[in-house]
Amino acid sequence: MSDTDDSVDQIEAVAANGLLHRRAFLKTGALVTGGATFLSAQAAPPEVDAWSTVPGRPPEAYGNRSDFESDVLRTPGFSPPALGAGASRTPHGSLEGMITPSALHFERHHNGIPNIDPDEHRLLIHGLVDRPLIFDLETLSRYPLVSRIQFLECSGNSRLLDADQPVDGSAQSIHGLLSCSEWTGVPLSILLDEAVIQTEGMWVLAEGADSSLMTRSIPMSKVRDDAIIALYQNGERLRPGNGYPMRLFLPGWEGNTSVKWLRRIKVTEAPTMTRDETSKYSDLRPDGSAQLFSFQMGVKSIITSPSGQQTMRGPGLYQISGLAWTGAGRISRVEVSADGGRSWGDAELSGPVLSKALTRFRMPWRWNGGPALIQSRAYDETGAVQPTRTALISQRGTQYNYHNHAIQTWQVSSNGEVSNVYS
Amino acid sequence: MSDTDDSVDQIEAVAANGLLHRRAFLKTGALVTGGATFLSAQAAPPEVDAWSTVPGRPPEAYGNRSDFESDVLRTPGFSPPALGAGASRTPHGSLEGMITPSALHFERHHNGIPNIDPDEHRLLIHGLVDRPLIFDLETLSRYPLVSRIQFLECSGNSRLLDADQPVDGSAQSIHGLLSCSEWTGVPLSILLDEAVIQTEGMWVLAEGADSSLMTRSIPMSKVRDDAIIALYQNGERLRPGNGYPMRLFLPGWEGNTSVKWLRRIKVTEAPTMTRDETSKYSDLRPDGSAQLFSFQMGVKSIITSPSGQQTMRGPGLYQISGLAWTGAGRISRVEVSADGGRSWGDAELSGPVLSKALTRFRMPWRWNGGPALIQSRAYDETGAVQPTRTALISQRGTQYNYHNHAIQTWQVSSNGEVSNVYS
Repeated sequence: MSDTDDSVDQIEAVAANGLLHRRAFLKTGALVTGGATFLSAQAAPPEVDAWSTVPGRPPEAYGNRSDFESDVLRTPGFSPPALGAGASRTPHGSLEGMITPSALHFERHHNGIPNIDPDEHRLLIHGLVDRPLIFDLETLSRYPLVSRIQFLECSGNSRLLDADQPVDGSAQSIHGLLSCSEWTGVPLSILLDEAVIQTEGMWVLAEGADSSLMTRSIPMSKVRDDAIIALYQNGERLRPGNGYPMRLFLPGWEGNTSVKWLRRIKVTEAPTMTRDETSKYSDLRPDGSAQLFSFQMGVKSIITSPSGQQTMRGPGLYQISGLAWTGAGRISRVEVSADGGRSWGDAELSGPVLSKALTRFRMPWRWNGGPALIQSRAYDETGAVQPTRTALISQRGTQYNYHNHAIQTWQVSSNGEVSNVYS
Repeated sequence: MSDTDDSVDQIEAVAANGLLHRRAFLKTGALVTGGATFLSAQAAPPEVDAWSTVPGRPPEAYGNRSDFESDVLRTPGFSPPALGAGASRTPHGSLEGMITPSALHFERHHNGIPNIDPDEHRLLIHGLVDRPLIFDLETLSRYPLVSRIQFLECSGNSRLLDADQPVDGSAQSIHGLLSCSEWTGVPLSILLDEAVIQTEGMWVLAEGADSSLMTRSIPMSKVRDDAIIALYQNGERLRPGNGYPMRLFLPGWEGNTSVKWLRRIKVTEAPTMTRDETSKYSDLRPDGSAQLFSFQMGVKSIITSPSGQQTMRGPGLYQISGLAWTGAGRISRVEVSADGGRSWGDAELSGPVLSKALTRFRMPWRWNGGPALIQSRAYDETGAVQPTRTALISQRGTQYNYHNHAIQTWQVSSNGEVSNVYS
């Protein structure tokens, strides 16, 4: 059908430059989409393809992807001289839904991925406790498990947006330090109760078993709230790059605090002020003081389709699709703009909308082939709203390198190219 | 601590033979679990393991599991002479949570897995429509997407329980034709609206592009309700063994109707009565007539831990963990018994409890080292209750080979061995 089919023009617009109400797709016989080929009423089925005429491949005991999907990859990056330090980013421009497949979950390493024998690994709980305890994996697995679908985001995610000039980036290179899994593990509070915390125990130190011995300080209030020792990710045991055989998981908090390969929880009176929370993961404020322990991730959203470095195939009906999340709990609303933030319409949220999980949002969009600036803006249940880049810089200054949760703009050019711009 | 710690005895029992209320684990300092090692208050951290002293492995672009998990596999089975025909079962005894990793999702093939080039694949919609349509993948991907976490179960799942004598089976070999993913795709009703169904069009025929050209008839009411053309599974494109690049997905219905490698939807007046719905996937009733089109999966639950062919490591506190589901919608309740069904206690359901999804349930259990018969019984929001094996046979006879959703019994012997029995 034609892109200028009259019926398209009858669909309720929700904002300027082609944003349509989601009912666009739900009207019977609405004829709203473009690109399908009409056949004559007597048309025969299409030719039988080669793969329909010969027996297929046998099944695999542990399955792989199609050969045709082999370019959907993380992009492991390294920062010498620390061997194995670096980050691998999730290719959000190629994914849909809210679950990130474990093979594409982002990773951030400080000295590579240890190859831990789960039978040899131990978790120690000590410090200001009456009864220090040591667990092996089998013992820990007998404690009560809880399962939750929740996001994990590195506090350095979207840092490229701090650049003075907009970088030529993609949803992966700019926002790829973000993923979402079903995590299953043991509530840490149960283990600490068993160890019996002393009155002065107000913080814990969490230490990983990788060779960087990553350590972070966590306030006891978070332990009591929803911290778990995660043992499973999307149904199976954690992947090595995500902490196998066990990691701390702190829902909604900067990823670095969810210490991987967890070997030690020490109950302390105060934060330990470790290398990993002072040399990194703190921020310079405009007044020259440092912002420490900025744990909770802000309310944020990104558009994953269309997104940077993709090319749209001509004018017509599309679907804007993206992800929203907040460390504060549930997303309550996501708005989308196609004119650089002058007009906004409400996107549809794909349920279930879960606390501290990614929420997929979508909105129909009729691209007329002209220039467009597409943005998304998230709100959460506490009333927080995702800020503009300008507002964020004005509030925090330009030396603040973490927790960038500003609205980001994709520019669609007349030739269909999509690129990161400041708007 | 000791397994006979007094505090254990103070925990509220919910049914006989050691089943405990979930509050068992939530009481501050309840000291209820067994196996953790106490250290003296002055204990030093454990020895530093070898992997903490050398840089780890570099990250991978598409990640793999730990070498130590390589025995968690599907078990591909073949049924000669049809090359590639057979089933691969999900290893539920090793998994937790509700999501099945795509690499371990069950598969059932009738002539192997076609290696389809997504750029060459087409979907035809024809038959009793005013406007036959043909779609390529890129065009289809511009239609509105919906995402849902839902189970898929082969109607032949748990068929081993039809045997006269209990088989020596595991959660995988008996119940492994069951999995749960986040599926993202296009509602089929939208595509049919675009094709404009004629008044007489009350069914559709769905045909796959594998070399068995699997075909099934689906009533239009299901198409209108919640049928989708699935394009993504757990965030990434469908796996080849699950229909890449597109499959029909019919939530809550027997897996075979969710035709993989979908190439054709033909709108028809009545069911087509294809080979695949008459030679198989129908059942002999006691009166000699055939039960056709028994699409919806019954209310059902299984215990995955402990489960068949596992061995428990001595008396103490454990956690009974399992999965419940129903083709009718949401699970409302799961009960667990440790005495072969004489007494029952309510298990905790791990939220979110989603329609036509797997729901994980758990219950603390203090195994006293004596014989036990553990069972689970599910209820759904329509009021349906999972039947006993005896009741199911009495209702359907012994020639009914599909849709076995009876309560199943694991026997725990004094030596800790777990086995499938009839009770």
